[in-house]
Amino acid sequence: MTRVNNQIILAERPQGMPDDSTFQFVQKEVANVREGQILIKTLYVSVDPYMRGRMVDAESYIEPFKVNEVIEGGSIGEVIESKSNKFQEGDVVTGMFGWQEYYAADENEIRQIDPSIAPITTHLGILGMTGLTAYFGLLDIGKPKEGETVVISGAAGSVGSTVGQIAKIKGARVVGIAGSDEKINYLKEELGFDAGINYRTTNDIERDLAQDCPDGVDVYFDNVGGKISDAVMTQLNRYARIPVCGAISTYNQEEPDIGPRVQQTLIKKSALMQGFTVANYADRFKEGAQQLGSWLQEGKLTYRETIREGFENIPDAFLDLFKGRNIGKLLVKVADRQYE
Amino acid sequence: MTRVNNQIILAERPQGMPDDSTFQFVQKEVANVREGQILIKTLYVSVDPYMRGRMVDAESYIEPFKVNEVIEGGSIGEVIESKSNKFQEGDVVTGMFGWQEYYAADENEIRQIDPSIAPITTHLGILGMTGLTAYFGLLDIGKPKEGETVVISGAAGSVGSTVGQIAKIKGARVVGIAGSDEKINYLKEELGFDAGINYRTTNDIERDLAQDCPDGVDVYFDNVGGKISDAVMTQLNRYARIPVCGAISTYNQEEPDIGPRVQQTLIKKSALMQGFTVANYADRFKEGAQQLGSWLQEGKLTYRETIREGFENIPDAFLDLFKGRNIGKLLVKVADRQYE
Repeated sequence: MTRVNNQIILAERPQGMPDDSTFQFVQKEVANVREGQILIKTLYVSVDPYMRGRMVDAESYIEPFKVNEVIEGGSIGEVIESKSNKFQEGDVVTGMFGWQEYYAADENEIRQIDPSIAPITTHLGILGMTGLTAYFGLLDIGKPKEGETVVISGAAGSVGSTVGQIAKIKGARVVGIAGSDEKINYLKEELGFDAGINYRTTNDIERDLAQDCPDGVDVYFDNVGGKISDAVMTQLNRYARIPVCGAISTYNQEEPDIGPRVQQTLIKKSALMQGFTVANYADRFKEGAQQLGSWLQEGKLTYRETIREGFENIPDAFLDLFKGRNIGKLLVKVADRQYE
Repeated sequence: MTRVNNQIILAERPQGMPDDSTFQFVQKEVANVREGQILIKTLYVSVDPYMRGRMVDAESYIEPFKVNEVIEGGSIGEVIESKSNKFQEGDVVTGMFGWQEYYAADENEIRQIDPSIAPITTHLGILGMTGLTAYFGLLDIGKPKEGETVVISGAAGSVGSTVGQIAKIKGARVVGIAGSDEKINYLKEELGFDAGINYRTTNDIERDLAQDCPDGVDVYFDNVGGKISDAVMTQLNRYARIPVCGAISTYNQEEPDIGPRVQQTLIKKSALMQGFTVANYADRFKEGAQQLGSWLQEGKLTYRETIREGFENIPDAFLDLFKGRNIGKLLVKVADRQYE
């Protein structure tokens, strides 16, 4: 019996917004499991803005996707066959096996997760890369002090919503920028943000920031780049810190990304901007995951997930990231657990 | 007998490049020296690019100059009358008394300098604020490691030329960007820079940088901002550090300072940009001055001064800063020492 492995490959590199021609659905035979390997059936795949960067063939911190190969990305699956001593059938694991229904993994490519601690999907979100991104970017670069003001763009996304909660834990005033009233309500009512700015409906984001940050901006956690970031730069305090995490507003832009140069502001404010990627902190993931797990168990952190259903809907879910539709972490459920 | 104090005041705030209407020469009586004060006769005044920033009425790290008041700036003078126990006639002192021939100072406004260690003018240059700016900006933010590549814009200026030499002391490859072949020769022949780029004559500064920095750019010490900095940003290595010290190319620009946004580059390279001003390091000036003094005495550091003559030439000397004419520190000699 041959099992069919549905895969989504990068058909061509997008110019501007990806579309149907970017992705192609293909069917392959499920690979044979070699000695030491595990066959994984995919349960959930993560769709994340940074994946847009891997679709272009440009040098970056992470290798570009290859054309005609499966789109890589964070996934959770169940071991359905094991030729490894380390894993057994029914184990839930996470890895970067991406947009395909089955994957024959080497032992060291995947990590087992414990479904008894928290829902398994948290390992693609608040206990996974997005939580760790928030944790290290905010604490290692932003370094918020009690009583300081932290502004977050893309605040209702999976990273931003975690950043804001950690900043509150650290005693900061927290102001989120997001693109709908529903999101702003979520930030204020459910996550305890002190204020929120809907950048789609405001007439003057600088004025709103000045109002909501009467003591200025000490930390700006930047998920979006572009004009929103230009506006926040006008409100910085002396010695402000800016973890530069993402620039989602510009990822699909075809024209050059042009705006006010930052040098004069950085000098006047003795301010710091630092780009980062979570992989920089690989040797501290354990520390981060433990702290996030504790806060989650203590009820100090909460999260929201938007879970789409169906392998065939992965590309659309990915494209929705750039339409600002989701609150919290966006995932696609591909299959139910068999061994539960 | 009344002594006349020639002063230069800020007559009006400049739009774009300052000119004759920016400054006004006035004559005042020399102030009476009160108990605890010292009367100083100015010997040298420093002209520095950052002073342009103080001519506009905008919030910054340093108070704007006031209209109709004497232009403040680093100066060296000789004590000609003392009602203080801490100073006596003939002492050479430095302070911020600025563009005037005489100044009645409080004890704590000035600092005595020792003419036996190095020429007194070095206290406005390599042993003064410019040397300290280079020292702290490079070592505290740039943190060059042996074998790394350091690029410096405004490399033949007082700060840039010191940065390059310190980077060489630390074992880095050093590439300077400056605006004349004479300057490039100076950097390479006298200061030991590994390469130099004349931005006025090159057709393609990115290509030149790629050639001169075959291993990429680890530290970019930015004195100029604008298009030169845009070009260097394309050549950064992962974990690059950018001390943002000045943006002289944009100080007199009337149009908005627009260029490629840096966020995507900072993310891709996990790079850091940090603005600073030497005053941030006030509690470490002693450490910096001692180290610079040692290097100077050991012959590991050298410097050049351009000294103009005559109080009446101070505004022109200041304006020459923006024409790229000077190599090293630009000073104006106002008077000879009387007590030497």
